[in-house]
Amino acid sequence: MTSKLEPIATVEPDEPQGEISLGILENLIGFRIRRIQNHLSRSFNALLNRDEIRPGVFSALALISANPGMSQKTLAREVGFDKATIVAILDNMERLGWTMRQRSKTDRRRHLLFVTPVGEEALAEMHGLARNNEAAINASLTDTERQTLQALLDKLYKHCFVDVSE
Amino acid sequence: MTSKLEPIATVEPDEPQGEISLGILENLIGFRIRRIQNHLSRSFNALLNRDEIRPGVFSALALISANPGMSQKTLAREVGFDKATIVAILDNMERLGWTMRQRSKTDRRRHLLFVTPVGEEALAEMHGLARNNEAAINASLTDTERQTLQALLDKLYKHCFVDVSE
Repeated sequence: MTSKLEPIATVEPDEPQGEISLGILENLIGFRIRRIQNHLSRSFNALLNRDEIRPGVFSALALISANPGMSQKTLAREVGFDKATIVAILDNMERLGWTMRQRSKTDRRRHLLFVTPVGEEALAEMHGLARNNEAAINASLTDTERQTLQALLDKLYKHCFVDVSE
Repeated sequence: MTSKLEPIATVEPDEPQGEISLGILENLIGFRIRRIQNHLSRSFNALLNRDEIRPGVFSALALISANPGMSQKTLAREVGFDKATIVAILDNMERLGWTMRQRSKTDRRRHLLFVTPVGEEALAEMHGLARNNEAAINASLTDTERQTLQALLDKLYKHCFVDVSE
């Protein structure tokens, strides 16, 4: 097979070399968003290394901490989850002793959410991990690029907003 | 409680009104990425309405279709999944008859991936749903904004790249 007359026969139609084509994904913003999310989520969970903490807990805990008394419905809208997922995340955080749910006195159907002191400690720790997790991608952008990206992502999010029933 | 002397007493310290604060999430790109992903994924699955199709199948199928013979390892890297997730997605697609795995003749440890004709039909259908799913957010950006966003997301993704062992 080292004959100079048969070079092609030694090359198998194996994996394509060089750049990978995105094909029909090229024009879907969702794919570019998704693969960054997949990666960041995976590396964050590896840093966190606690299987008992559901994905989404960090974001939910941070939002409740920044908005004490916020409702389950508003929380679901702000993180883009449906009701079942939010309820599972809230159950998870309550089992860990990180949040409390209280019924609204003015509207008994509404649950108001609060973070406990133990939850605040866990949040501070996860915040450190999240910053480490993003250090490399953050450093890859200039301040202006980061601001542009944030503004464009906020614009997108506003337009994918749908009401999530409680 | 309608007395003009006690207006404050009728206002419960209930859910905060107006703008929600992002708190410590304000400076985390990952949160802005995640909530768009959460929303798009949820609305795509609602459009698709087939519980037997795992999240991630559409992206994986599209990449294999655009790069016939690509390896499992390259696929994992391009969509940001770990090995276990990629294997589960490939198993799912094979059960549906959408993809085939073949061992490389030059390296028996490598699996080369191909989309079947039935898989191509399913891909075309899901592509239509994905475009519908993104129609609103796409329309919210100008062409220039969309190009800027894509370029910034590609830059980010390059910097969150880690090698995923096969």
